[in-house]
Amino acid sequence: MLKPLGNRVLLEVKKEEEKTASGLVLPDSAKEKPQTAVVVAVGEGKLLENGDYAKPLVSVNDKVMFEKYAGSEIKYQGTEYLVVKDTDIIAIID
Amino acid sequence: MLKPLGNRVLLEVKKEEEKTASGLVLPDSAKEKPQTAVVVAVGEGKLLENGDYAKPLVSVNDKVMFEKYAGSEIKYQGTEYLVVKDTDIIAIID
Amino acid sequence: MLKPLGNRVLLEVKKEEEKTASGLVLPDSAKEKPQTAVVVAVGEGKLLENGDYAKPLVSVNDKVMFEKYAGSEIKYQGTEYLVVKDTDIIAIID
Amino acid sequence: MLKPLGNRVLLEVKKEEEKTASGLVLPDSAKEKPQTAVVVAVGEGKLLENGDYAKPLVSVNDKVMFEKYAGSEIKYQGTEYLVVKDTDIIAIID
Amino acid sequence: MLKPLGNRVLLEVKKEEEKTASGLVLPDSAKEKPQTAVVVAVGEGKLLENGDYAKPLVSVNDKVMFEKYAGSEIKYQGTEYLVVKDTDIIAIID
Amino acid sequence: MLKPLGNRVLLEVKKEEEKTASGLVLPDSAKEKPQTAVVVAVGEGKLLENGDYAKPLVSVNDKVMFEKYAGSEIKYQGTEYLVVKDTDIIAIID
Amino acid sequence: MLKPLGNRVLLEVKKEEEKTASGLVLPDSAKEKPQTAVVVAVGEGKLLENGDYAKPLVSVNDKVMFEKYAGSEIKYQGTEYLVVKDTDIIAIID
Repeated sequence: MLKPLGNRVLLEVKKEEEKTASGLVLPDSAKEKPQTAVVVAVGEGKLLENGDYAKPLVSVNDKVMFEKYAGSEIKYQGTEYLVVKDTDIIAIID
Repeated sequence: MLKPLGNRVLLEVKKEEEKTASGLVLPDSAKEKPQTAVVVAVGEGKLLENGDYAKPLVSVNDKVMFEKYAGSEIKYQGTEYLVVKDTDIIAIID
Repeated sequence: MLKPLGNRVLLEVKKEEEKTASGLVLPDSAKEKPQTAVVVAVGEGKLLENGDYAKPLVSVNDKVMFEKYAGSEIKYQGTEYLVVKDTDIIAIID
Repeated sequence: MLKPLGNRVLLEVKKEEEKTASGLVLPDSAKEKPQTAVVVAVGEGKLLENGDYAKPLVSVNDKVMFEKYAGSEIKYQGTEYLVVKDTDIIAIID
Repeated sequence: MLKPLGNRVLLEVKKEEEKTASGLVLPDSAKEKPQTAVVVAVGEGKLLENGDYAKPLVSVNDKVMFEKYAGSEIKYQGTEYLVVKDTDIIAIID
Repeated sequence: MLKPLGNRVLLEVKKEEEKTASGLVLPDSAKEKPQTAVVVAVGEGKLLENGDYAKPLVSVNDKVMFEKYAGSEIKYQGTEYLVVKDTDIIAIID
Repeated sequence: MLKPLGNRVLLEVKKEEEKTASGLVLPDSAKEKPQTAVVVAVGEGKLLENGDYAKPLVSVNDKVMFEKYAGSEIKYQGTEYLVVKDTDIIAIID
């Protein structure tokens, strides 16, 4: 299992949705394009000055949109993931 | 439904008003031009060092002006939205 | 009505005074030139780390000088305004 | 009267002293040259994170030296002033 | 023994895994590539404004992924190590 | 008398020592070279977020080394001084 | 005696060890190379916002590795020293 650290979030990117024109979320071409993904794991959150951690605002299985060029791609047991900062997540798709 | 994260605000931009010369709010051409939009959803707010969130100063259905080049465009269920930071919102139009 | 957000202040710029040589406030040409305006509306102020807002140090109807290239120009109901950060206001003219 | 805002200080610059070789304070040419001025008015001070203001460390009528390229020049009722941040003031001349 | 300081972490990099195609973690080529390593020693953590240290979120013997270009390479008693900031560690591999 | 403001320190630079090869402190030529000086006056210190001032760590008459290109040169009553930030002082020579 | 200020640490660099191939610590050539030194004196530490100082995490006589290009070289009573920030020290060699 991969456990992201700090305010990082492990995402499994949904590449198919971008291509199907019938999809729910389709970024416009004029500006930077967010992508959709599913949250696979969540870190402890942002370290605060009092020593606490501010839990990321997303939970496992949340479907989210994130800034397209954010994060680091990794492969683990044959699956591709993306690790982003929680602040790179734009919105939860309910 | 789209739930913006952190200090983000989901806006539905009012493009028509920019074109009608009879509109209430028309940015001048000399400087950077703000645009108008309606607030559709609001995030938890800015994370403070004590772990609390400072709720954005706008509410759903507020008509607002925002910095023109701010935010990320997204499409959701056929509608175009803009996600901006709450600090990119200049004023509420009452 | 326009309600500026956060530490923003809505100004109505006094362009005439700059031209009348008999005016009270005339910026010198050697450096960046401040301009004069009247405060029309004031935001909640700067968000502090404890979640409070620090009210801007100007009030409605104050005549102020501000950094010339600061802010965003907007038109509302036929009147031109300027929205600046409260930190862009240099002085109150009493 | 001009009331400078925040951590700003209103100065009346003493240009003569720079020219008289018998003057007390004469900046050297090798580095950035401070200038002398008299404090005319003082702002509330720097806004702290607890919402208080830290009063500037100079008072009205103090003779001070300040960083040469700091501040904004303004004219008010025929007199030229300079508005600087209190942190641009280097020393008080007692 | 090497004791890393502050929020530094001493890593022993696993170079073999990158080459074996059967390995568990294989960074993709499109973006910046994280690498895997084993944690050998951990510093006191990040210094907080209250004077405490926030212990790094990894422990000795953790297998971790880290940002590829992070850190300083050192040799100690014939072994090569890498010292990185704890914030350069992306995830723990469980 | 010159009273430096905030975290500034007034120094009288000892230029002679740099030239005498028998001197105690002689900066090496390979890197940026600190210089020696005597502390003539000390400001209130650095303004903290709680409104207190953190007194500079040097006292009047301390012989100190400081970063060579730091500070502003001033002349006062025929003597040349240097005003530096207390953080530009490297060490006290006991 | 030289007393380093604030979060500075006075080091005596061990240049010999770098040359002896039998040495314990030999930086690799691929990245930025840390060097070894012995701690000669330690400053008060980093100034915190509450006015306290956070003591550096090294003590006199510690053998340390530090970032190669950090610090200022000084000569004092015939000996060459290096003054670095405590955050430039990578590890203690036990």
